[in-house]
Amino acid sequence: MYTLYLIAIVAEAMSGALMGIQRGMDRFGLAFVGSVTALGGGTLRDLLLDHHPVGWIAHPEYIVITLIAATMASATATLLGRMKQLFVTVDALGLAAFAVIGCDIGVAAGQSFLIIVISGAITGIGGGMLRDLLCNEIPIVLREELYASVAFLTGALYVGLLYAGVGAEWAAIAAIGAGFAMRMLSVRFGWRMRKFGPEDINR
Amino acid sequence: MYTLYLIAIVAEAMSGALMGIQRGMDRFGLAFVGSVTALGGGTLRDLLLDHHPVGWIAHPEYIVITLIAATMASATATLLGRMKQLFVTVDALGLAAFAVIGCDIGVAAGQSFLIIVISGAITGIGGGMLRDLLCNEIPIVLREELYASVAFLTGALYVGLLYAGVGAEWAAIAAIGAGFAMRMLSVRFGWRMRKFGPEDINR
Amino acid sequence: MYTLYLIAIVAEAMSGALMGIQRGMDRFGLAFVGSVTALGGGTLRDLLLDHHPVGWIAHPEYIVITLIAATMASATATLLGRMKQLFVTVDALGLAAFAVIGCDIGVAAGQSFLIIVISGAITGIGGGMLRDLLCNEIPIVLREELYASVAFLTGALYVGLLYAGVGAEWAAIAAIGAGFAMRMLSVRFGWRMRKFGPEDINR
Repeated sequence: MYTLYLIAIVAEAMSGALMGIQRGMDRFGLAFVGSVTALGGGTLRDLLLDHHPVGWIAHPEYIVITLIAATMASATATLLGRMKQLFVTVDALGLAAFAVIGCDIGVAAGQSFLIIVISGAITGIGGGMLRDLLCNEIPIVLREELYASVAFLTGALYVGLLYAGVGAEWAAIAAIGAGFAMRMLSVRFGWRMRKFGPEDINR
Repeated sequence: MYTLYLIAIVAEAMSGALMGIQRGMDRFGLAFVGSVTALGGGTLRDLLLDHHPVGWIAHPEYIVITLIAATMASATATLLGRMKQLFVTVDALGLAAFAVIGCDIGVAAGQSFLIIVISGAITGIGGGMLRDLLCNEIPIVLREELYASVAFLTGALYVGLLYAGVGAEWAAIAAIGAGFAMRMLSVRFGWRMRKFGPEDINR
Repeated sequence: MYTLYLIAIVAEAMSGALMGIQRGMDRFGLAFVGSVTALGGGTLRDLLLDHHPVGWIAHPEYIVITLIAATMASATATLLGRMKQLFVTVDALGLAAFAVIGCDIGVAAGQSFLIIVISGAITGIGGGMLRDLLCNEIPIVLREELYASVAFLTGALYVGLLYAGVGAEWAAIAAIGAGFAMRMLSVRFGWRMRKFGPEDINR
C-alpha cells in the first residue's frame, strides 16, 4: 500500500508539472503545482477532518519526492508527453489508491459512512482540482469523464466491504482493483455523464 | 431558525447548480458546486475559527439535502431559470440568516466584535465566492451589488443588539428582517457601490 | 520586527487593492482583496500547521489596518500607480520579513528544517497567490521572477543561522538583509528562472 502511494504521488506530481509546463510556468511553479497536485487532496481532507499533523508535515519526505518528480518531469517533458497511456494507467491506480487511503483516515476518525466516502473522494480528486484552479481552469473533474464517480464508488465499495466484515487488506485490494478497472474502461470506451449547458436553462 | 437554514441551503445549492449548468458541468460537477455554494461559507468559517467538527461533517444530512437540491435543479433547470425573482428573494433571506448563524458561532467561540461580524460575513458570502472560483470567475461579491455589505451590516446589527441586552431570538428576527429588506431594496433600486477600474490608476 | 510587519501588511494591502482596482472591483472588493493579500499567507500557514488562533483572529487590529490601507489605496490610486519603485522596495522588505516570521512559527511548532522553510515561504508568497486566484489569474509567483525562490532562500538562511547557534535577532537581520538584496537585485537586473511552455512537450 505504501509503495502504491509513493508511485501515485510521483505520477500525480509529474502530471501536475506537465500541466504547469503547458501554462508557461517556471521551475518553481512546476515544483509547486506538482506538489499541490500530488498532496493537495490529502491536505484538504486533513484540514476538513481536523486530522493533524497534515500528511506531508508529518512526513516531509513526501514533499522531497514530489519536488524531485516535478523537476524530473521538466527535464523529460518531451518523453513524458509521449507516454500518455502510461500516465492514464498510473493515474487510475493512484485515484483508486488515494480513495481507499482517504477512507482509512475517515474510518480512523470514527466518521459516518457518507463522510468516510467523501473523505476518500476528496483525497482522490482534491489535488487535481487545486491544480486546475492554480492553472486558471474550471476543474476538469466537474466537467468531464468518470473520475470523481470512480473515487466515490471505490470508496463506497471499500467501506461497504469493511462494514460487511471483510478484512481491510482484502477490501482494499478488491476496491482498488474495481476502481482501477472502472476508470480504465471509462477512458477506453469514452464513458461519461451527461453534460449540461446554457441551453438547458434558456429553453 | 433551523427551517430557515434548510431553506437557505436548498436555495444556495440550486443556484450553484444553475451556474454549473451554464458552465457546461456534468451531474457530479453540479452536485459538487451546489454543495460547495451552500456549505462552503460555513466550512471556511469553521476552519478559520478552528470550530470542529465542521458543520456538514457533524450533520451529514446537510450534504444529502444539498445533493438532492442540486440534482433537482438539473432536472428542472428551465423552470428554475424562469423563477429568478423567487431565487433572489430566497437568496436574500438565506444571506441574512447565514450571517446571523455565523455570528452565533463567533459569539460561542468568545471572539471580539469585529471577528464575530467577519465570521457572519464569511458564512454569508464564502459559499458564493468558492462557487465563482470553481466556475473560473472573479467573485461577483467583489465586483457588484450590495451583497457583502448586507452580510456585514446584518451581522453588526445582530451583535449590536445582543450587546445591548436584546434576547437572541428577537435580535435574530430584527437583524434578518433588516438584512433581508436592505438586500431586496438594493436589488430593486439597483443600489451599488462605486466600481473602480484601470482608469482610476492611469490618470 | 513588529514595525516591519506592520509596514509590510500595509504595503501588501495597498498592492492587493491596486490589483482589485484594475479588475473593476468595488470598495468591498478592494478591502477584501487587500486584506487577503496582506494576511492570507499567514492564514494558510496557520491552518496547515494547526496554529490557532489564526494571526488576525488573535489580533483583529491587523484587519483594521489592512482595511484602512486598502481604502486609502483606492483614494490615492493615481498617486500610488506612480510610486511603483517604492512599492517594489517595500514589497521586497515585506517578503523577506514575512518569510522570517513564518519560519519562527514553524520553529515554535517544533517542525523539521524543510517544514520550517516551507512555513516561511507560504507566509511570504501565500497572500499574493490568493490575490491572483481571486483576480482570476495564474499566480504570478508560479510564472515570473525570483520571488518564491527569495522566500525559500531567506527562510533557509535564517533557519541555517539559527541552527548554527546565531542569536534569533542577528539571524533575522542577516536573512532579511540578504533576502531584500536578492529580491532587489533580481528586479533590477531582470533575473528569472527558465520559463517552460507547450513547446517543451510537443517537440
